[in-house]
Amino acid sequence: MRNIYQVKQEICAIGDRLYKRGYAAGNDGNISFRISENEVVCTPTMISKGFMTPEDLCVVDMNGKQLAGKRKATSEIRLHLTIMKERPEVKSVVHCHPPYATAFGMAREPIPPCALPEIEIHLGEVPIAKYAIPGGQEFADTVLQFVHKTKVVVLANHGTVSWGENPEQAYWYTEMLDAYCHMLILAKSIGNVGYFTKAEEEELLALKKKWGIDDPRFEMKDCDICSNDVFRDSWKEAGLAHRGFNPPSYREEKPEDDQEALIAEITKRVVDALKK
Amino acid sequence: MRNIYQVKQEICAIGDRLYKRGYAAGNDGNISFRISENEVVCTPTMISKGFMTPEDLCVVDMNGKQLAGKRKATSEIRLHLTIMKERPEVKSVVHCHPPYATAFGMAREPIPPCALPEIEIHLGEVPIAKYAIPGGQEFADTVLQFVHKTKVVVLANHGTVSWGENPEQAYWYTEMLDAYCHMLILAKSIGNVGYFTKAEEEELLALKKKWGIDDPRFEMKDCDICSNDVFRDSWKEAGLAHRGFNPPSYREEKPEDDQEALIAEITKRVVDALKK
Amino acid sequence: MRNIYQVKQEICAIGDRLYKRGYAAGNDGNISFRISENEVVCTPTMISKGFMTPEDLCVVDMNGKQLAGKRKATSEIRLHLTIMKERPEVKSVVHCHPPYATAFGMAREPIPPCALPEIEIHLGEVPIAKYAIPGGQEFADTVLQFVHKTKVVVLANHGTVSWGENPEQAYWYTEMLDAYCHMLILAKSIGNVGYFTKAEEEELLALKKKWGIDDPRFEMKDCDICSNDVFRDSWKEAGLAHRGFNPPSYREEKPEDDQEALIAEITKRVVDALKK
Amino acid sequence: MRNIYQVKQEICAIGDRLYKRGYAAGNDGNISFRISENEVVCTPTMISKGFMTPEDLCVVDMNGKQLAGKRKATSEIRLHLTIMKERPEVKSVVHCHPPYATAFGMAREPIPPCALPEIEIHLGEVPIAKYAIPGGQEFADTVLQFVHKTKVVVLANHGTVSWGENPEQAYWYTEMLDAYCHMLILAKSIGNVGYFTKAEEEELLALKKKWGIDDPRFEMKDCDICSNDVFRDSWKEAGLAHRGFNPPSYREEKPEDDQEALIAEITKRVVDALKK
Repeated sequence: MRNIYQVKQEICAIGDRLYKRGYAAGNDGNISFRISENEVVCTPTMISKGFMTPEDLCVVDMNGKQLAGKRKATSEIRLHLTIMKERPEVKSVVHCHPPYATAFGMAREPIPPCALPEIEIHLGEVPIAKYAIPGGQEFADTVLQFVHKTKVVVLANHGTVSWGENPEQAYWYTEMLDAYCHMLILAKSIGNVGYFTKAEEEELLALKKKWGIDDPRFEMKDCDICSNDVFRDSWKEAGLAHRGFNPPSYREEKPEDDQEALIAEITKRVVDALKK
Repeated sequence: MRNIYQVKQEICAIGDRLYKRGYAAGNDGNISFRISENEVVCTPTMISKGFMTPEDLCVVDMNGKQLAGKRKATSEIRLHLTIMKERPEVKSVVHCHPPYATAFGMAREPIPPCALPEIEIHLGEVPIAKYAIPGGQEFADTVLQFVHKTKVVVLANHGTVSWGENPEQAYWYTEMLDAYCHMLILAKSIGNVGYFTKAEEEELLALKKKWGIDDPRFEMKDCDICSNDVFRDSWKEAGLAHRGFNPPSYREEKPEDDQEALIAEITKRVVDALKK
Repeated sequence: MRNIYQVKQEICAIGDRLYKRGYAAGNDGNISFRISENEVVCTPTMISKGFMTPEDLCVVDMNGKQLAGKRKATSEIRLHLTIMKERPEVKSVVHCHPPYATAFGMAREPIPPCALPEIEIHLGEVPIAKYAIPGGQEFADTVLQFVHKTKVVVLANHGTVSWGENPEQAYWYTEMLDAYCHMLILAKSIGNVGYFTKAEEEELLALKKKWGIDDPRFEMKDCDICSNDVFRDSWKEAGLAHRGFNPPSYREEKPEDDQEALIAEITKRVVDALKK
Repeated sequence: MRNIYQVKQEICAIGDRLYKRGYAAGNDGNISFRISENEVVCTPTMISKGFMTPEDLCVVDMNGKQLAGKRKATSEIRLHLTIMKERPEVKSVVHCHPPYATAFGMAREPIPPCALPEIEIHLGEVPIAKYAIPGGQEFADTVLQFVHKTKVVVLANHGTVSWGENPEQAYWYTEMLDAYCHMLILAKSIGNVGYFTKAEEEELLALKKKWGIDDPRFEMKDCDICSNDVFRDSWKEAGLAHRGFNPPSYREEKPEDDQEALIAEITKRVVDALKK
């Protein structure tokens, strides 16, 4: 068992990783760790996450009331508590602004799945929650519809939030997601993302099931496995649409040679018009 | 109260962050901290900001005359002093070349607002000051028209300058701006920046007002809230124009399908010309 | 001779480099070091490679059976052992997810050779092995066809694996490859990769031969030296095709001025159609 | 005066910066420091520049003959010695592979000047030397035509080399150049590089002259100041051409609206053809 000082050290160590990876500019980001039924250690507001000491941290209760700490607790603690209330086994929440994942949330582009096995196994499909003004309960509630189906959510026009049994585990899901989003953007700039086939993805999901890691896709019927079906119902509300990336089955059929199609169409139209 | 040695240590610590983030190549960048009515501690010229010790720092008066220090004070101190004279509550100024923000200044592209709440709250609209040859008073004066309306300015074809109560606070605004500019470029490469609606932005500005953080947009009337209206008058002089990014209300209406429009137009022109 | 504790320290030091370079998010990546006929020290599963101590490491035999270590050995050890069995002089294997190299594997884009002398000398052509679900022997076997012809393989939709006499040497090939892939993507974004001529490449291969470094291109006859001929037979199976990068001899002939060609073709077609 | 141990420590410290900035993958890069008429301390071959200790370094004479050191001196020492022989006031040379600058050398794209004052003042125009196989005297000689006119050269399809009075100064020019090349690529991705006007550039050159920093552009007559005229004669041999970036005066005149021009041209051609 960790004592509270060790908990605080662990949060500071994860703060340091957040900062060094560039996931938290200025006073961005916050980290929490639930240490008892009604006590949560959390980071204060107005501090760089890369330069905290255990003395800087706060303790709040499950309603967000500050119990200890000389600094003021983060105003985004409500987001953390909402997740912890919904999933009591979750002990730690990390919220920050990793650049590549946040860019998907800013572009309101669904994150295409079916491109890296580790992401399929550890994260699965990653939803993007609709934008709401930060700080209040309405904001915290934007993740509610996803909280039982994932370990990490991108917050539209904002950042990410991930959770786990301790700060390191919660942090890992953010780190994995951001690395994946970076590679997606790079693969697009090279020319093309080569997605898994349906059979390859089903094989990964079978392995995931065998390893006892849950995935909402296990429950889906008649679904198009690589088409973000799990969270598709939430897209309209959040303003999401595939603009830059198309997972395999949503790729529109385009003529092989765009220029040939253009030439043919212009020719046809001019001739039709002149023959009228 | 800090003693002068602590002030110098604080400047060196921020220099280290500047260097590690890649905001200051070679001898780039400078940091200042006003310690009394007429004394400002500042970084010397010709030193890497990542490898300074307190012994390297200088003291100048409010006219830029060097009072102490074995090294020569930065020639860009005039920019710092001009800001401190205009806003006596400002105690520290940070000038450097963060890559993503500087790229906007090099592209002379206004930084689109209305995409991340933290930026709206902490920075608001960020102006780009017109280019002037560095070092002299004319250069320092390019920020004057913005100095009461923002905490950070991009200097066209040069870098950034930000200010605050101490070096860390001043640095934060630079770090936040550069992270934001990085995400904007990434979101564009994904396909699209999803901006706030007018209502979402007004809600953020109301929150900002409630928190007592000033924003020149509070005073504007009949303005298009997400269209850089606050600093728009300065664009012409600085050579700024939206080329890569269009905030929502300035997006030109384009036909849904560019190719269709091209085909239709060619057909029309050919037919018109032949029927003449 | 290293003792086992030094071996473990060496692995931890390379883990630290992997992490700092961003090649291993979350628990990604694994490193091994063969210390005797039937003993291999390796990294455990579910640990960040940037924060390991010698106490965290495991020992397995050449069949993957765990001999020592309080943590569970990586499930990807089979990939390491398969390489070590095929090439007994290989003592260390590094597997991770460097972003730029992995992006080529995700885009299923062959990595163009003939652009940097160090890459030609130290790496040569780098193959991309076809995707297979990780963990099992089928996955490990995807590298078999390449293992005698290279020191580093990109794993389609997965990551990279490289090998050498010790962890640092194995790591170097990954680091070199990722830096090269980064530069290729940058050169493409600037406009163009300027490849070596046949004569320049032959001069490099002659130097390589003189220095005693093997290259499968030494054995090839009637080959187009800069056209990935060495591994071209494997492309179809792995779904590889040049989409973003064309090495010199596969560049399709395009008219000098694309627009002129378009105009001429449209004119011709319209006129032909109308004269029918 | 530095003793030889301090010289070695200084080289190791710069090696550490090279590595952390990602300018030297694997065993890439080398650093030298001339300590007397006929003695040069240099880095050995086959070592990571980020993990050297003074004991690893070598001493060679001005003909490249190794005088001291248990490791073998870098084979690229000839490049260093050639520069030191030509310019006896140069005491230190740094060669490495910074990603953004090397990408320009790989794309064979001249680096556009006239975009950042610090670059104009400290570097001026930066030439790209033609490719030659590394290691030999022919390779070293590729920089000869530039060595009196610059402090840093990009080596086509290879990397960079810069020089100064000590390793830190030599390193600075590389760091500045790479940061500049990064910003150029970013500005292009935003949409546009806004270059200085002729008057603005002349003002910068006048300041440079006043400060006593030499620039080959001082001697030029009837030149187009922002058009890489200084090194333009070397372009053909090195295969250089503006493909991605056009400095102001070489920008081809394009109609304001490309699409309009296309439509007008097609219309004209079709009509002309039909009226024949």
